[in-house]
Amino acid sequence: MNRESVLLTDLYQLTMLQAYYERGMNEVAVFEFFVRKLPEERNFLIAAGLEQVLEYLEQACFAADELQWLQHCGRFRGDFVGSLADWRFSGDVDALPEGTLVFPDEPLLRIIAPMREAQLVETRIINLLQFQSMVAAKAARCVLAAAGRTLVDFGLRRAHGAEAGLLSARASYLAGFTGTATVLAGMRWGIPLFGTMAHSYIQAHASETQAFENFARSQPGGTTLLIDTYDTEEAARKLVALMPKLAAPSIQAVRLDSGDLGEHARRVRAILDAGGLSEVRIFASGNLDEYRIRDLLQSGAPIDGFGVGTRMNTSADKPYLDCAYKLQEYAGSPRRKRSEGKATWPGRKQIRRAYGADGRMSGDLLTVASNSHEQDDLLIPAMRQGRRVKQSPALADIRARVCDGLARLPDPLRSLDPAPAYPVTVSQALHSLALAADRSASRQS
Amino acid sequence: MNRESVLLTDLYQLTMLQAYYERGMNEVAVFEFFVRKLPEERNFLIAAGLEQVLEYLEQACFAADELQWLQHCGRFRGDFVGSLADWRFSGDVDALPEGTLVFPDEPLLRIIAPMREAQLVETRIINLLQFQSMVAAKAARCVLAAAGRTLVDFGLRRAHGAEAGLLSARASYLAGFTGTATVLAGMRWGIPLFGTMAHSYIQAHASETQAFENFARSQPGGTTLLIDTYDTEEAARKLVALMPKLAAPSIQAVRLDSGDLGEHARRVRAILDAGGLSEVRIFASGNLDEYRIRDLLQSGAPIDGFGVGTRMNTSADKPYLDCAYKLQEYAGSPRRKRSEGKATWPGRKQIRRAYGADGRMSGDLLTVASNSHEQDDLLIPAMRQGRRVKQSPALADIRARVCDGLARLPDPLRSLDPAPAYPVTVSQALHSLALAADRSASRQS
Repeated sequence: MNRESVLLTDLYQLTMLQAYYERGMNEVAVFEFFVRKLPEERNFLIAAGLEQVLEYLEQACFAADELQWLQHCGRFRGDFVGSLADWRFSGDVDALPEGTLVFPDEPLLRIIAPMREAQLVETRIINLLQFQSMVAAKAARCVLAAAGRTLVDFGLRRAHGAEAGLLSARASYLAGFTGTATVLAGMRWGIPLFGTMAHSYIQAHASETQAFENFARSQPGGTTLLIDTYDTEEAARKLVALMPKLAAPSIQAVRLDSGDLGEHARRVRAILDAGGLSEVRIFASGNLDEYRIRDLLQSGAPIDGFGVGTRMNTSADKPYLDCAYKLQEYAGSPRRKRSEGKATWPGRKQIRRAYGADGRMSGDLLTVASNSHEQDDLLIPAMRQGRRVKQSPALADIRARVCDGLARLPDPLRSLDPAPAYPVTVSQALHSLALAADRSASRQS
Repeated sequence: MNRESVLLTDLYQLTMLQAYYERGMNEVAVFEFFVRKLPEERNFLIAAGLEQVLEYLEQACFAADELQWLQHCGRFRGDFVGSLADWRFSGDVDALPEGTLVFPDEPLLRIIAPMREAQLVETRIINLLQFQSMVAAKAARCVLAAAGRTLVDFGLRRAHGAEAGLLSARASYLAGFTGTATVLAGMRWGIPLFGTMAHSYIQAHASETQAFENFARSQPGGTTLLIDTYDTEEAARKLVALMPKLAAPSIQAVRLDSGDLGEHARRVRAILDAGGLSEVRIFASGNLDEYRIRDLLQSGAPIDGFGVGTRMNTSADKPYLDCAYKLQEYAGSPRRKRSEGKATWPGRKQIRRAYGADGRMSGDLLTVASNSHEQDDLLIPAMRQGRRVKQSPALADIRARVCDGLARLPDPLRSLDPAPAYPVTVSQALHSLALAADRSASRQS
């Protein structure tokens, strides 16, 4: 990422900072990011985006032109703006490693820092964690539906802006996609790249066969031809006629992008097989999501891979999560929001995950974090005093964690259909802490 | 925007470019961006994002490290990568001015450029135009529902990444929102900023009254207090008791963020009025969209302003558009895609809009663009030979265009409910061109 502005935040962060500054309030605050409730269409989420949060916290500061703008925007006092010149994040971060399966009320990340640091970063932390965790979960559902077939992220064009396109390539790859069409994601993270051709390429040629031939010759490493521009089955027959003229295996697959994908796949498979091209694979795209993939495969469509775009990248059936970054402790006292329908568990929390004899996950315990890190804690240290405690994990390791997690999910939760909630038990210690926080708040408020 | 990488594109753009390069194909191509079909939940769209498209086209080029990466990624030939070093966009752009109301099949933008320029920019053009046009339309529906009340974009945190947050602040402001909470949008574009306070601010204090007092004193220009952290009506009474201690008008509004917003608003209004605070306004937030705003106002809720976030910024009920950037002409011949369900109108097109005696829009004509620009053409020149033909319009002018457009919409289309489609007639000339393109394609394919 380019250096990003710390002014990519909500105005209230700065007005609160000014109010804290004026009262000298800057005790240690503990905030946690968590999801309150899963959408009905999701049985789990996948923690993702921590890497970008840590990058952000490491480099966040006010640039000279930003300070100048704040100084003159008419809302802030000079001494307060002056105090921002050396604002840095110097706090601690504990978090679920990326790729961990996560459920409602469970913190994905905890920030422990002086209030004026912990508050300002709220907006961007939510912005980064919700998006990738949401997309990773949506993509994982596609992975479950595709049952081992190739899945490629095709969604950059209809993602919500540049960063959404780039980060959804990353999130879907972490979740088990085979790769992406987004070139920059390949350059930046080494994510495998896939691409075919556009209808415009075919249309720019005098004949479809000529377009196929030119394209195949220009990609000697092998390629995929788009065959639905005019008549899908006719294009498959043209390919059968063309293939002997080309050096094998220059055409590895054909792509279907419109019409009844299952029916076209069956007919094209028959044409290719009859033409001796049984090694040419069939790739499908166009408005796909986990439901369409499941239905196509259940109908027996001979499709070997799927390009999944818009509906995955935007998490189209539920494009946001009911998530929050909430104050859990200030100046050593647990805090708890009690707004209607939005009450939260106070204090610093930890998650323990239990497994059955079959290796499947059997339930989580949400409890009060101990001071020392325990072997089976799911939240682990990521940053101390503003510095990372370890190197970023390889994407391959995160993918392996997701893969292991999905394999250990109880079967009903692996289904695309809504399942009974995964059991997350709140410990007695946490119940007691909530009661204590309520009593304390009643005295105060 | 920071300089962005031209590798924020789909791999197939580059593989197609290599294929064109090897065959020496680089005739003039004409592409148009349009929406095929409106979601059932939308009666119109608003063209937005042109400014960012022009910025992109002006600065797009391959950086040295990108060329090096392409050289070594194993997919491209050295001479082709070498040819990219001086790749620039040198073409023409015609477009709807931002803020123009637009309907299916109508081009928002036309690119006329050598094929290898016009093709490469496809992905980012779609990425920029679909998002802002979609958000502007969603925001305009909120504007119609709010009937003159204050509307503030609160959605950065759950927008899909940084750019989505920033551009949705812009798009919603263009559509008629009063302002945004996103500070960077204020600094970059001068969009008015609004902010209140977070629950954490209240919770960090020993008492709610103390939090209110500290905050109000720190914002002498006036502020909004969040009153639902513990007990909404109780907090309103605390404010009534506190107000005489503060210099007026330091507290301009209270914010409700949970529970039954309409019921709380009525009770809080009564408490404030009885306490002599009839000038303090009520601002509501929390899962709002155009439907909730309409319902709250229809129920008579005394709410003066709304913070609208997630559901607007993500266009949550329909987070993508069925849109395309299609080749309409190559080397002087009209082209047309005929894929099932995705056939398009060929050639360079123009839109003419008719108005009734009452000043309301009565129908559009989609026709073949003439060579010279006509007075009533909706698509107008934006760029010639890679350079802008005029300065960017002021945001205020774009807002005025939206405002005028919404006022001229026939009433059924202004409704939040699905209305019969706005009449877009395809001209005889365009029908003839499509027939000619089909005949020509039949001979070719």
